[in-house]
Amino acid sequence: MMNFADRLIDAIRKKKSCVCVGLDPRLDLIPQEIVHQYDIFDYDINIQAGYVIRDFCNAVIDAVADDAVAVKPQSAFFEQYGWPGVQALEQIVNYAQQKGLLVILDVKRSDIASTAEAYAKAFFKGRDISADAITVNPYLGMDSLEPFIKLCTDEGKGLFVLVKTSNPGSKDFQDALLQDNRKLYELVAEKVGQAGQKLVGKEGYSSIGAVVGATFPQEAETIRKLMPKTIFLVPGYGAQGAKAEDLKDYFNTDGLGVIINASRSIIFAGAKSTNWQGEIKKAAKEMKEEIGRVTRKA
Amino acid sequence: MMNFADRLIDAIRKKKSCVCVGLDPRLDLIPQEIVHQYDIFDYDINIQAGYVIRDFCNAVIDAVADDAVAVKPQSAFFEQYGWPGVQALEQIVNYAQQKGLLVILDVKRSDIASTAEAYAKAFFKGRDISADAITVNPYLGMDSLEPFIKLCTDEGKGLFVLVKTSNPGSKDFQDALLQDNRKLYELVAEKVGQAGQKLVGKEGYSSIGAVVGATFPQEAETIRKLMPKTIFLVPGYGAQGAKAEDLKDYFNTDGLGVIINASRSIIFAGAKSTNWQGEIKKAAKEMKEEIGRVTRKA
Repeated sequence: MMNFADRLIDAIRKKKSCVCVGLDPRLDLIPQEIVHQYDIFDYDINIQAGYVIRDFCNAVIDAVADDAVAVKPQSAFFEQYGWPGVQALEQIVNYAQQKGLLVILDVKRSDIASTAEAYAKAFFKGRDISADAITVNPYLGMDSLEPFIKLCTDEGKGLFVLVKTSNPGSKDFQDALLQDNRKLYELVAEKVGQAGQKLVGKEGYSSIGAVVGATFPQEAETIRKLMPKTIFLVPGYGAQGAKAEDLKDYFNTDGLGVIINASRSIIFAGAKSTNWQGEIKKAAKEMKEEIGRVTRKA
Repeated sequence: MMNFADRLIDAIRKKKSCVCVGLDPRLDLIPQEIVHQYDIFDYDINIQAGYVIRDFCNAVIDAVADDAVAVKPQSAFFEQYGWPGVQALEQIVNYAQQKGLLVILDVKRSDIASTAEAYAKAFFKGRDISADAITVNPYLGMDSLEPFIKLCTDEGKGLFVLVKTSNPGSKDFQDALLQDNRKLYELVAEKVGQAGQKLVGKEGYSSIGAVVGATFPQEAETIRKLMPKTIFLVPGYGAQGAKAEDLKDYFNTDGLGVIINASRSIIFAGAKSTNWQGEIKKAAKEMKEEIGRVTRKA
């Protein structure tokens, strides 16, 4: 299979978009017309939830397929409904891929290599799903990433390693000041960037990307210098407060190297509207255009 | 519900054991008599795997219930079989609790607070399962742990935060040298220890524990000084190379404060034997006795 970074850059060029839509379904914000399809039956509450979030996410996928390059299902919002939630997750991963979207499964997993191998199987080589990329946490060290990197090499998969996250508490450890005057996230950026060298595709970007929160533009500038060939997955747009103009320095001079994720501001854009699917489509399109106006090149 | 640390210490005293058995099922090492119960049917391969790992783990639980205080299912080994694996995980969590074992779900999750809340619901407040404790990764910072800590306070749950993991690569970031001459894991130990102060139970231990690998005794001594009231969950015993005598300094002077996990060396002790359940029981009992000989008090 083609290098993940090449597949992603290809989609970005074709759709003129670097929008990633986060699929974080919350039952209380899902249109009642979907909920009512299932609450007439005497289903187990988790099984009912599984059907509802599946149908909602599939409708979101339909609405954003033209304007987004990827969707990022947040595993926690599915796992909270137990195995029926995980079944729903598997179904929407497949549906999004059928609709031509790349799927970045947001699982932020981390474990020692022998266990990471089982996670790699779970998300990349399962009989039922094969995500295009996943998010991972680097705290356990580079050997813990090896089983995932192997599937990036062998099967065209992608990784986004947490470098600097969008939450305020990211300062606690990610900003820890090292003896060489750098912060921890700079060391992580350096090592992850090095590991990514081997996976640089034809477009000049690596299949090993980095998560860099939209709420820290200064840090992003530093990280960009350390990781010029790295695609940043940028969460925190919209509901978490970041705007398009904050994100200029996340991009490379070629206008590439970034995908920006918004979840709540897109998928619940129509929560109170009868035309909710239309509102979701509109929100995704507007986000694409807002970002397009500030990137250095088209 | 009673404070988690008190429940754990209570179990340790009653069973005179600090053995935790890791449930990391691997299909190729599961006795054929279990596999053959299901391979005669035309099941989907993941559904079949789900049944097999459920039955095997339940048999392990039966075999170790007298000598272990807790089991630690490793989520990855269930997730690799998709939703049927997750369904099996839910079933064995409930079965272990019925058999009087505490369940530490090894998920090593990490996310921003709004997402961590969904994970907390998934593992602690699901309709179908309610683990006693889970493992979490601190890289995102203390705010990412808050939703879990809340359920430790409100519902008697426990956490084990990764501090120093057992793998060689743990040096990459956990050992990063900070400007104040400490290593990163010491900063993590300090902050996690502070957060745990509020959750110290009657026995003098906190419900917020730490993961400290059995392969790093020197580091454990340092961490013990920083976290005197913290229970260490110690992986790496047995198959990963650590022996009982390596673990002396992990314990507090009261002979408490530690649970030691072994996975492969217990659950596959009888892989080639017809009396495999007996071999598993024997391996758990021997581990309990070996550790008992080196702890400072009984």
